[in-house]
Amino acid sequence: MRFTSFNPPVRTLMGPGPSDVHPRVTSAMARPTIGHLDPAFVSMMDEVKAMLQYAFQTKNELTIPVSAPGSAGMETCFVNLIEAGDKVIVCQNGVFGGRMKENVERAGAIAVMVEDDWGKPVDPDKLEDALKANPDAKIVAFVHAETSTGAQSDAKTLCALARKYDCLSIVDAVTSLGGTELRVDDWGIDAIYSGTQKCLSCTPGLSPVSFSERALEAIKNRKQKVQSWFLDTNLVMGYWGGSSKRAYHHTAPVNSLYALHESLVMLQNEGLENAWQRHADNHLALRAGIEAMGLSFIVDEPYRLPQLNSVTIPEGVDEAAVRSTLLNRFNLEIGAGLGSLAGKVWRIGLMGQSSRAENILLCLGALDVVLSDMGADINSGVALQTAQKLMK
Amino acid sequence: MRFTSFNPPVRTLMGPGPSDVHPRVTSAMARPTIGHLDPAFVSMMDEVKAMLQYAFQTKNELTIPVSAPGSAGMETCFVNLIEAGDKVIVCQNGVFGGRMKENVERAGAIAVMVEDDWGKPVDPDKLEDALKANPDAKIVAFVHAETSTGAQSDAKTLCALARKYDCLSIVDAVTSLGGTELRVDDWGIDAIYSGTQKCLSCTPGLSPVSFSERALEAIKNRKQKVQSWFLDTNLVMGYWGGSSKRAYHHTAPVNSLYALHESLVMLQNEGLENAWQRHADNHLALRAGIEAMGLSFIVDEPYRLPQLNSVTIPEGVDEAAVRSTLLNRFNLEIGAGLGSLAGKVWRIGLMGQSSRAENILLCLGALDVVLSDMGADINSGVALQTAQKLMK
Repeated sequence: MRFTSFNPPVRTLMGPGPSDVHPRVTSAMARPTIGHLDPAFVSMMDEVKAMLQYAFQTKNELTIPVSAPGSAGMETCFVNLIEAGDKVIVCQNGVFGGRMKENVERAGAIAVMVEDDWGKPVDPDKLEDALKANPDAKIVAFVHAETSTGAQSDAKTLCALARKYDCLSIVDAVTSLGGTELRVDDWGIDAIYSGTQKCLSCTPGLSPVSFSERALEAIKNRKQKVQSWFLDTNLVMGYWGGSSKRAYHHTAPVNSLYALHESLVMLQNEGLENAWQRHADNHLALRAGIEAMGLSFIVDEPYRLPQLNSVTIPEGVDEAAVRSTLLNRFNLEIGAGLGSLAGKVWRIGLMGQSSRAENILLCLGALDVVLSDMGADINSGVALQTAQKLMK
Repeated sequence: MRFTSFNPPVRTLMGPGPSDVHPRVTSAMARPTIGHLDPAFVSMMDEVKAMLQYAFQTKNELTIPVSAPGSAGMETCFVNLIEAGDKVIVCQNGVFGGRMKENVERAGAIAVMVEDDWGKPVDPDKLEDALKANPDAKIVAFVHAETSTGAQSDAKTLCALARKYDCLSIVDAVTSLGGTELRVDDWGIDAIYSGTQKCLSCTPGLSPVSFSERALEAIKNRKQKVQSWFLDTNLVMGYWGGSSKRAYHHTAPVNSLYALHESLVMLQNEGLENAWQRHADNHLALRAGIEAMGLSFIVDEPYRLPQLNSVTIPEGVDEAAVRSTLLNRFNLEIGAGLGSLAGKVWRIGLMGQSSRAENILLCLGALDVVLSDMGADINSGVALQTAQKLMK
């Protein structure tokens, strides 16, 4: 069988990620490949580190992109900090807390689960109860921005609790980095991971991580080797570390790092707080249109992520048919529900480059015509006017 | 501190990888990002699988690119096949056999080492002795093409020995895939991994792997969960598997997969056996020039990899100064020695797109002028004429 070059359709990406990627970023990615030990490349790596420190609001020396997607960033945090037999308190309020539990158990540790309903934030009181009941716990892990539900938890409070009970914290910031307030140093976060394909609006495939001094100390004092050779930060830092002499560990994904560099230059140009504000503003416009249409959000307002909107599906509507019609007629991707929310919500992403006025108009307009065509019980013809009044 | 877009220098890459990437591949990489569950993307994934089966010469269903570099492909093979307490025979004749040992031990298994000198192939007799002495061994692991030395081992014979003693085989084909003969099904290889940045001439960052039916059976019968969630093939195949319904596991590195697709289309167009022949032919031309200059190869001819040439350094020459002069004056990258060969050899890659007549001329010419300038004891002015006579 003979295959030919692949030319993807041009989509508007308003699902849970990847989000729209600016042509500046894909163009950067296409620049000529150079060696992973080339002095010019090493200088670029240093800039990536400095800009990731800015995005995370941290001075942590170990602030680098793992050469693999967010799930590998998660695993990096867990396998470096956990030793067999450790006890880890995992707060779960969606899909990704469950993935954390898997990581804990596969590293030979014990996961103590603190459960909250999907769509709700993590309850700090429940965490404190668990910390009191488990004085031998070593780590607290939770998701800052649950991509599966669109709920944001109070990372500052949860990390303060972890410190109060002498635990390290591991924070999932896959969907929050670059989209909503996140301050690694001020909030005392010990280990954090994210993804490039959400609010950074880079291509998917890398996972920025950062580790505090306390976390590094714990890693240095390990009795067992890290179970993953590829993700062992002791080895990775021989390549990404501060010295000008870089030791080969693995071959870095050179062109993907060009792309990340460019997306971070764009974030720096916009300004981090401006990016947070843009995400907040655009959410309000989308919300106005969604509510005018008669649909609603499953997450209560104070905990709602502006960049990931879980929206209810009108009764009797075939939600998968709506998504495929949006894709086929308008090249618009929105996300399905995940886990226990499958079939119950759509997830509409307003992340990074996708968080733009024109995308909001397209999404509301397309939903309006497709749902009306299907005879869904919505208020048709009012969403765009309502939304545009709130656009900045 | 303000950073601006990164514009890499244009290099010729003749080190141990990454190799030169054709503009067709980087252009493909820059195409618009689409969703990792988009039907158009899923079709492209199927083509990537089919073309990887061709490159590996296998019908194995589990033939996919791992979403991370070759080291993660190595880890995928080891952590899926190993359970704690297993015994694994690891043949070491360079850096990467040592990395295999790390993988075995970090998975809680016992590594029985079969050692050969660096630059020599794995000795099948030594392996058979080890298999006889360790009837409880479950796996044999070795490197087909040692990137650190340029030596090729007889994968067919070694895998036949593994089968004879009822062991599974794990084969490192990072530098051989697409460059020299490799037949996964005919040779009875059970698990194999490679990289995209060597003879496939794609950008670095992905690791093609393939598992035989016997290997899948072993994975299915595991008593313990795979220690890595990210690399667990049971989960990954929910996304990459044959069913048209793909379950989210992690967000695929969409644009990197566009690049791999394009490089595999180019391999298919050239023809796998033609690609092997091209690598063999170009090695002969380089060799003629290198030897005319008075330099020599550290690997004996029958075991010499055409795509990775370990060349001796003339006495008294500062090898690092030579490499940096080549880079700064001629934008030419060649590789340093690794491990016990550091300071003793240069590694000259003729892999994928780097395996071209013009690269051979550039490399020989640049070495000639730089070494002559440094007063090295070489035969100057004869390499190009000698080499070009052998160019096809």
